[in-house]
Amino acid sequence: MTTVGRPYLPNRKKLEGYLDQVYESQWLTNNGPLVRELEERLGDYLGVDNLLLVANGTLALEVALRTFGISGEAVSTPFTFVATSAAIRNEGLGVRYADIDPETLNLDPAKVESACGPDTQALVPVHVYGNPCDVEGFDELARRKGLKTVYDAAHALGVNYDGHSVLRWGDAATLSLHATKLFHTGEGGAVVFRRAEDHERARRLINFGLEAVDGSIPDVGMNAKMSEFHAAVGLAMLDDLPAILEHRKAVGEAYERELDDWVSFPAWSKRGTRNGAYAPILLETPSVRDKVKAVLQSEDVIARSYFSPSLDETAAYRAGNFFPESQAKALRTLCLPINTGMDFNDVKKISLCIKRAINQERE
Amino acid sequence: MTTVGRPYLPNRKKLEGYLDQVYESQWLTNNGPLVRELEERLGDYLGVDNLLLVANGTLALEVALRTFGISGEAVSTPFTFVATSAAIRNEGLGVRYADIDPETLNLDPAKVESACGPDTQALVPVHVYGNPCDVEGFDELARRKGLKTVYDAAHALGVNYDGHSVLRWGDAATLSLHATKLFHTGEGGAVVFRRAEDHERARRLINFGLEAVDGSIPDVGMNAKMSEFHAAVGLAMLDDLPAILEHRKAVGEAYERELDDWVSFPAWSKRGTRNGAYAPILLETPSVRDKVKAVLQSEDVIARSYFSPSLDETAAYRAGNFFPESQAKALRTLCLPINTGMDFNDVKKISLCIKRAINQERE
Repeated sequence: MTTVGRPYLPNRKKLEGYLDQVYESQWLTNNGPLVRELEERLGDYLGVDNLLLVANGTLALEVALRTFGISGEAVSTPFTFVATSAAIRNEGLGVRYADIDPETLNLDPAKVESACGPDTQALVPVHVYGNPCDVEGFDELARRKGLKTVYDAAHALGVNYDGHSVLRWGDAATLSLHATKLFHTGEGGAVVFRRAEDHERARRLINFGLEAVDGSIPDVGMNAKMSEFHAAVGLAMLDDLPAILEHRKAVGEAYERELDDWVSFPAWSKRGTRNGAYAPILLETPSVRDKVKAVLQSEDVIARSYFSPSLDETAAYRAGNFFPESQAKALRTLCLPINTGMDFNDVKKISLCIKRAINQERE
Repeated sequence: MTTVGRPYLPNRKKLEGYLDQVYESQWLTNNGPLVRELEERLGDYLGVDNLLLVANGTLALEVALRTFGISGEAVSTPFTFVATSAAIRNEGLGVRYADIDPETLNLDPAKVESACGPDTQALVPVHVYGNPCDVEGFDELARRKGLKTVYDAAHALGVNYDGHSVLRWGDAATLSLHATKLFHTGEGGAVVFRRAEDHERARRLINFGLEAVDGSIPDVGMNAKMSEFHAAVGLAMLDDLPAILEHRKAVGEAYERELDDWVSFPAWSKRGTRNGAYAPILLETPSVRDKVKAVLQSEDVIARSYFSPSLDETAAYRAGNFFPESQAKALRTLCLPINTGMDFNDVKKISLCIKRAINQERE
């Protein structure tokens, strides 16, 4: 079975080496040596400061919002995995949606500005499929309106923008290190803060708000600690990350060559690099999308309708307004399998299936 | 160094065996086969139904409260680890404290009843140090007032009450499976629900509220999933659990024999079994407590002032009222080292230190 989200298994021998260290230190969690090593090495690799590892990507967004003391509402996108909106609501905030740009599938600063209300305190844009948002536009808007910006960069690990990690943009940017991500710790996440003082505050918040120096409890915190076992998984695959990124990028580009005349793709930012986190395609109509998905499934190829439904159409996040671009794209997108176990022959085979399905639907 | 909270390291060969299974299944998280195996085997061992594994003990309390749709306020104890109150606040609820019983150190149903206000919807008592609360009293109160009861049973794994697991009491009871607990998964937690339908709803809530059948999103959920790596840690030590409980109980009782004339102890419930989760002692005065702690530290023995400060005295959870029993006990308790690496000679040595310190302070 070829599937979206088949996890990368870290080198077993390296994993054992890190487990040896865990057994030696007898330190299993609570900001242990492997967590600190992974924070340092991953931060160095990505070229970012103030990287904090946490238990998962949803908690990463939650701790980022809490670090800034946001209340009221945040503006975000309905075209994303549900975790983005769940994190906002879990922090006691309301979510206001703005519609996406029909080409990039990312939020558009102009539409976000119109969506802001008197209680809006934060922007939570998503770099959808790892495609960088209009970060300058959001930066300008946030400054002008006095808002905090937390980018959901769950898909954007390894993506550079104008030569530097896109994670440097915003007051914070969050990563998912979930098993299905191109780099992972089983379950895990991270926050990259712009400022060292926010990083420090967040490190306290993920450990119940406890102040290490004197044991006082100035703030209501959470448990969002990453264990040494999960850090070991990440460390065991960290050396492979450049090759993983290279391979996934090549697979993504191969799909686009094969399918260029048949489907469309998000408009990838020309100033951003590609990381091959996802291989999204846009079909002509919802029925073509469903047909392609079904034909692939009959060949044991599991593609996913990311991101569907548009969150404003779900019971939990229903919005008063109507977001036609997000709703339309949710019915037309499909993420194809992309993982390190695949080669160009797999891409060819899957692309042929897709073309056949499109032809069948056209007949 | 002898310390409270030295973690038990699971048999390495067994752990490797479970990691073999993870590499074979390529299933790293999201309700995987090892999580389900651990849920079933741990539930069987404890004699409880509807056990749900989650990412940590704080999230266990949060998902339990959310499952019942609690809003308004919950009544809880100031004499506990901060996670209990943090979880309540993280679910958007207010915390009202009631004072503890000076003998058991647990909440007292009569005081809890007085603390209830018009917005109180839930009780969150703690089985402090694994010592069962007055569960019948809370049961009666909750029925009469139409409240939900969620026991924080973080310390109570393996404790029976009238011959059955104390986890059977309440609408839900939550466990911590943190590294320092007598049974653990590195980071982890669990909820035991009284009713199967709550268990089912909670399983959806810990996976973003997603409905598996049709991908709909009826509720705002969270990410509280336990990974296969953490489940592997638990499975690798599960066979040792009966021996761990036996040993810790024996160490706890040895402390009480050695120190019987020198310190006092919580009044352990006569209807409950002991699990040796903690070895708490109560010193005569705060200054004796501080002296004992310092003398132990000078001998490389790390005892902990659990639970201090009384939460109503912290900046994050300051309450208008005054809770004299909790505040007084917080200054007089000390949890002594208790772990499977210790034998009766360690207990004797530590007890001698304590007696010496008490004598020095008395002089």
